[in-house]
Amino acid sequence: MSDRKSKSVFLKAYPQGMPAASDFEIRETTVPAAGANEMVCRTIWMSVDPYMRGRMRPDVKSYIPPFSLDEPLAGGAVAEVVESNIADYGVGDLIVDFTGGWKEYYVSSGERTQKIIPNLAPLPAWLGVLGMPGLTAWAGVTQIMKPKEGETLFVSGAAGAVGSVVCQLGKMRGARVVASAGSPEKIRWLKEEAGVDVALNYKDYKNAAELTKALAEAAPNGVDCYFENVGGMHLEAAINCIGFGGRMALCGMISMYNNTEVEPGPPNLVNLIGRGVMARGFIVSEYADKAMEFAGEVAPLVVSKKIKFQQTEYDGLDRAADAFVGLFHGENAGKAVVRVGADPA
Amino acid sequence: MSDRKSKSVFLKAYPQGMPAASDFEIRETTVPAAGANEMVCRTIWMSVDPYMRGRMRPDVKSYIPPFSLDEPLAGGAVAEVVESNIADYGVGDLIVDFTGGWKEYYVSSGERTQKIIPNLAPLPAWLGVLGMPGLTAWAGVTQIMKPKEGETLFVSGAAGAVGSVVCQLGKMRGARVVASAGSPEKIRWLKEEAGVDVALNYKDYKNAAELTKALAEAAPNGVDCYFENVGGMHLEAAINCIGFGGRMALCGMISMYNNTEVEPGPPNLVNLIGRGVMARGFIVSEYADKAMEFAGEVAPLVVSKKIKFQQTEYDGLDRAADAFVGLFHGENAGKAVVRVGADPA
Repeated sequence: MSDRKSKSVFLKAYPQGMPAASDFEIRETTVPAAGANEMVCRTIWMSVDPYMRGRMRPDVKSYIPPFSLDEPLAGGAVAEVVESNIADYGVGDLIVDFTGGWKEYYVSSGERTQKIIPNLAPLPAWLGVLGMPGLTAWAGVTQIMKPKEGETLFVSGAAGAVGSVVCQLGKMRGARVVASAGSPEKIRWLKEEAGVDVALNYKDYKNAAELTKALAEAAPNGVDCYFENVGGMHLEAAINCIGFGGRMALCGMISMYNNTEVEPGPPNLVNLIGRGVMARGFIVSEYADKAMEFAGEVAPLVVSKKIKFQQTEYDGLDRAADAFVGLFHGENAGKAVVRVGADPA
Repeated sequence: MSDRKSKSVFLKAYPQGMPAASDFEIRETTVPAAGANEMVCRTIWMSVDPYMRGRMRPDVKSYIPPFSLDEPLAGGAVAEVVESNIADYGVGDLIVDFTGGWKEYYVSSGERTQKIIPNLAPLPAWLGVLGMPGLTAWAGVTQIMKPKEGETLFVSGAAGAVGSVVCQLGKMRGARVVASAGSPEKIRWLKEEAGVDVALNYKDYKNAAELTKALAEAAPNGVDCYFENVGGMHLEAAINCIGFGGRMALCGMISMYNNTEVEPGPPNLVNLIGRGVMARGFIVSEYADKAMEFAGEVAPLVVSKKIKFQQTEYDGLDRAADAFVGLFHGENAGKAVVRVGADPA
């Protein structure tokens, strides 16, 4: 096979503060033919996720290295195998992997890929409810917070790819679910589709004190479980309302990712002591070994349509930057995905 | 039996900010004879503990109600039974309990008391290494942080009643122990007696950045476990240096207990996410059911003198306020106790 040309998205420079589409550019790269134990893949859908912002800082020590300015960006994708020298993968196989995003074609070693079960769900669902965000939500619920029947679960970023699954898995366990999101349409979806008990539009509250008051009214017996996606006043309000023996799954703090100045933490951490609270930060890869257990619960719920999910689609690789930037402006309902290539023939 | 007179310590008013001896006063109270299923006890030693500051705020919802201005203060004590209508207790029995502090005589229902094993250790040890502070330290080590051989354990307030036990239980489990305390004498004791690997005098560091630098040098492989007694810059430095999979036992934040203004929390909580850190606030009563297991490990270490402990003794009930205030000025080495009455005949 000969080399292929691929449009690929690069960072022009590391963003300062809020990222803008102008921080990104598309360049044409050359994708070599598959070598020994390699395959070439064609990206169909790509994912944009908040954690990627952390990889756009050259100076931060994290669980994953920063993006280079000299290579295409990378991220989750659904792709089709178009050449293969890997025994387990044949041309035409559909896969989900961790590196195929932000480009049309790429070479894969097959080490961070999984085959997709055909026709189980629309392809982008493998980047959302059936993929990394779904496993993240499931792990936070089942491995960290463990909500019990009748307990109250508060979820911030509740209409997003992760939060929306947390809400529904919480309801299925008999919890009272209080959700926070940032638009009337998201609030409507959370109440009518996800079935939460109370949905708060956080934009109605100017500060942590106001949000605390609303949360205390929504959770009159206190918050037993908190799933943290947002940080800032959400975390402070949750810690104000957390009950004795509370459990907090710390998944993200998206409100802080674009800070250019140091933002103080909540002043009420001492509550964690007197109330015997456990707070557990986590990254989804810690729970990779639970993926089968996750799929065993969630895939049937997807097939039976007992779990609802939304996605916001952007059409074309040249919209990828917009999709990513939209994450930080609350513009995406549910999972944000970008169509990069045509569905398989 | 007739009524007894007792000197007892009362709060004159709830302290604003740093407490002072002038916030306290001794009044004479009348202790009635023991009723049915009651006993009268004579206090020999009393304990002062940082948590008591939290009970001196009338407006805070906590795991334990605020002190009343109309009753004597209460707290841990070693006492002798002088009258008893309780079958399990006889005159002359020595007990440790949760309410006998801050007074000479009191009536007890026997519900929050334990008999002391005679001659196992000096009596005040039942308020320290063998008592509530010892159980607190043991629970943080064995139930929360679970340090492994070769891991690094950072302890703030390390020369105190709780911290000094944490250091030594950590060393016994093969951890590298980095301790922080606030005087050259405490630093010497930690190195020479408690056997820690590194002892930092936090007063040498002006802010979290400086303490972080020192901690990073003392813990070149990162902090795996953090036992939190202090808050403020200690917590921020610990979160800067915490490693992947770190565990934090949040026991106290004494630097903040007398704040009159809101003090922001650490700005680096997002590290807990990327590093998969578990932070668990706790109060010792959660682990009351582990008291036998605790005693099984720690009592033999006390008898064999394999665990070292210090105590700072104040002589007389009229020094109780000084002992308590001293907690917040770093004046007490190890456990602070007050002699209230004579040893048993």
